[in-house]
Amino acid sequence: MGNITNSNAAFLSRELAGIGVAVFRHTSVGDNHERLRRAMESAFENADIVITTGGLGPTQDDITKTVAAEFFGLQLEIHEESKLRILKRFAGRNLPESVERNALVPAGAMVFANENGSAPGICLENCGRILIMLPGPPHEMQPMFLRHGLDFLRKKTDRVFVSRTLKMTGIGETAVEAALQDIIDAQTNPTIAPYAKVGEVHVRITASGADTAAANALLLPTADEIYSRLGEKIYGEDDVPLAETVLQLLRCGGHSLAVAESCTGGLIAAEIVSVAGSSDIFCEGFVTYSNEAKTARILVAAEILAAHGAVSAETAAAMAIGAAKTAGASVAISTTGIAGPGGGTAEKPVGLVYVGLFIAGHGTFTSRFNLIGGRNEIRRCATILALDFLRRTVGGTP
Amino acid sequence: MGNITNSNAAFLSRELAGIGVAVFRHTSVGDNHERLRRAMESAFENADIVITTGGLGPTQDDITKTVAAEFFGLQLEIHEESKLRILKRFAGRNLPESVERNALVPAGAMVFANENGSAPGICLENCGRILIMLPGPPHEMQPMFLRHGLDFLRKKTDRVFVSRTLKMTGIGETAVEAALQDIIDAQTNPTIAPYAKVGEVHVRITASGADTAAANALLLPTADEIYSRLGEKIYGEDDVPLAETVLQLLRCGGHSLAVAESCTGGLIAAEIVSVAGSSDIFCEGFVTYSNEAKTARILVAAEILAAHGAVSAETAAAMAIGAAKTAGASVAISTTGIAGPGGGTAEKPVGLVYVGLFIAGHGTFTSRFNLIGGRNEIRRCATILALDFLRRTVGGTP
Repeated sequence: MGNITNSNAAFLSRELAGIGVAVFRHTSVGDNHERLRRAMESAFENADIVITTGGLGPTQDDITKTVAAEFFGLQLEIHEESKLRILKRFAGRNLPESVERNALVPAGAMVFANENGSAPGICLENCGRILIMLPGPPHEMQPMFLRHGLDFLRKKTDRVFVSRTLKMTGIGETAVEAALQDIIDAQTNPTIAPYAKVGEVHVRITASGADTAAANALLLPTADEIYSRLGEKIYGEDDVPLAETVLQLLRCGGHSLAVAESCTGGLIAAEIVSVAGSSDIFCEGFVTYSNEAKTARILVAAEILAAHGAVSAETAAAMAIGAAKTAGASVAISTTGIAGPGGGTAEKPVGLVYVGLFIAGHGTFTSRFNLIGGRNEIRRCATILALDFLRRTVGGTP
Repeated sequence: MGNITNSNAAFLSRELAGIGVAVFRHTSVGDNHERLRRAMESAFENADIVITTGGLGPTQDDITKTVAAEFFGLQLEIHEESKLRILKRFAGRNLPESVERNALVPAGAMVFANENGSAPGICLENCGRILIMLPGPPHEMQPMFLRHGLDFLRKKTDRVFVSRTLKMTGIGETAVEAALQDIIDAQTNPTIAPYAKVGEVHVRITASGADTAAANALLLPTADEIYSRLGEKIYGEDDVPLAETVLQLLRCGGHSLAVAESCTGGLIAAEIVSVAGSSDIFCEGFVTYSNEAKTARILVAAEILAAHGAVSAETAAAMAIGAAKTAGASVAISTTGIAGPGGGTAEKPVGLVYVGLFIAGHGTFTSRFNLIGGRNEIRRCATILALDFLRRTVGGTP
């Protein structure tokens, strides 16, 4: 019906790529016995390993276990350990009638305990065919696969895979591909793949070897080469968000941070606060959407607003200076722009955004962007560009 | 490789359900001729209509048109109108070498113009089989499908489908299902389906009839019945976000709004500013993450912080009162809580969030929540609960 976006497929593909398992196909079908059976048959015609998500619950709709048991010619039996685990989970609450049904697994199956829900995960291995059945909710499926599924599959190969993702801002996917074309064309081991994100490009390098040291030895020269070509665009690796890199640079410089936002309306502050431990650097945020707030709170002179307008380099600079002063911060970043859909003119069109930056002892900097997209795309993109402007200026690569 | 989550499948399923087309299966395969051919064959074995997304670009990886032309026994030809459109799009910039390849379509195909990119959409109809090929990027695919694809498919049926989505907060999916169980069990026309979202539940009602009036006549009594059971939970319908409902209520009451955020760190302000035209109601936001900022900017007495702590009902109330006063707003909403992962205690665990609300002439209100999840789940959920608290209190159903 389209009510749920399938994020499980991308999660599993990404994790499987990390251990060198190539994903051949994703298929989604409704809770229909015949369609699910045919999807399972067709999957095993083309692949050694089939992973299912969903349909392991206790209701009549949940048919994955029944179809799998039929397919492998097995009976469903109660898995006592899972039954006890589910009973314990519901201790003190109304016990659902369906505990026994929830604890059914095909005879002889390996069971993955579910630490975040009721339905156990199930792994069947038969004549070279491996079927792994995982629960549907991502918060149950993901930790179960990372803890049990990945380990099980890793043992099926004698190779080890390592990967690093280099994350960049201030450059488009096409420019990244052009800069790395010879490496991309020549890739075998390691492989490299660029991915476009909102305002960012990620490049993942994956190498395999007999052990971690061998795989890392293959990976390192490629990573170094990419750094030598695109180093100033790379703000971090793997799970490090841009805001965390920015906070780390500020921390190294002994700085504190204030944020003054007009068009981004709180998004920059929210990115900063999303990083645990940001409170030692982040003083305060001002969402000064009106001219009155710009003047009263962050000391933007009415003359500047009158002479240049709220969306101008002069106002962006004054916002940053005033935010730092009011908050008592050594660094402040500001945004002002026209997010649309209304409010644009020929001179100041929708998408025009100014970023202001004040760094005590260094001065005031501004940057101008012409962004495309809808209101919230423009606001999200302005947020990333502002954080990147801060990163490059504080980090010394403006 | 798992770098992209497939949001196209959910979008298309949702839109197709709205015109009564049942989706049988989704399949994703890599850019591989043989695999794509087999996926297309298998799809037409089970369905009259097949929709593809992606693979229409100009590079060697883009093989959808080639496979489709082979499957239908057609030649690829240059579509002059598309070629002119693409040339115009690149006017004044470096022309990609691949314009001609991008404008190739199977002979005799209907072409959907792409208003947001280069690759044209293609519709083939042959012996009762319909193949619709759409570009992959959602910002190109979605408007093209809404403008051209949906219209084309709607003409294939003599029935008209209408739907309404009732959007609720402050109630879980299970409770919604329980409240509507008899309607869900008895559904034929209209159909009703509840969808769980972060902090929200949506209920979609879809009815079909010979014309819009007949479909609406079937839909209306069911919608009315749901309103009579769950009306106070329903904040809006269809595309109206919670923040827009809140702004409309404030507008009707002649109010202006300030926001003071600690744990949500700008997310509430960002939701408000995401609504175009919010500037007539929204004065200003304060991201007062530190105690100093709470005292200096929004007048929270040091004695309150000392006696009750930053995360307390008393501080939440003082933040709302002080934010309204500083900003000169008639209404202010505040949040303070422990988003984690650190900072929790037995008395004040991670997930504890207080929301404060000041309404001039009515008084000060607070609400306490115990949320579960990671740091950013807690922050997102607190944002929705705060907006909903504001909605229910200002709207008169606290």
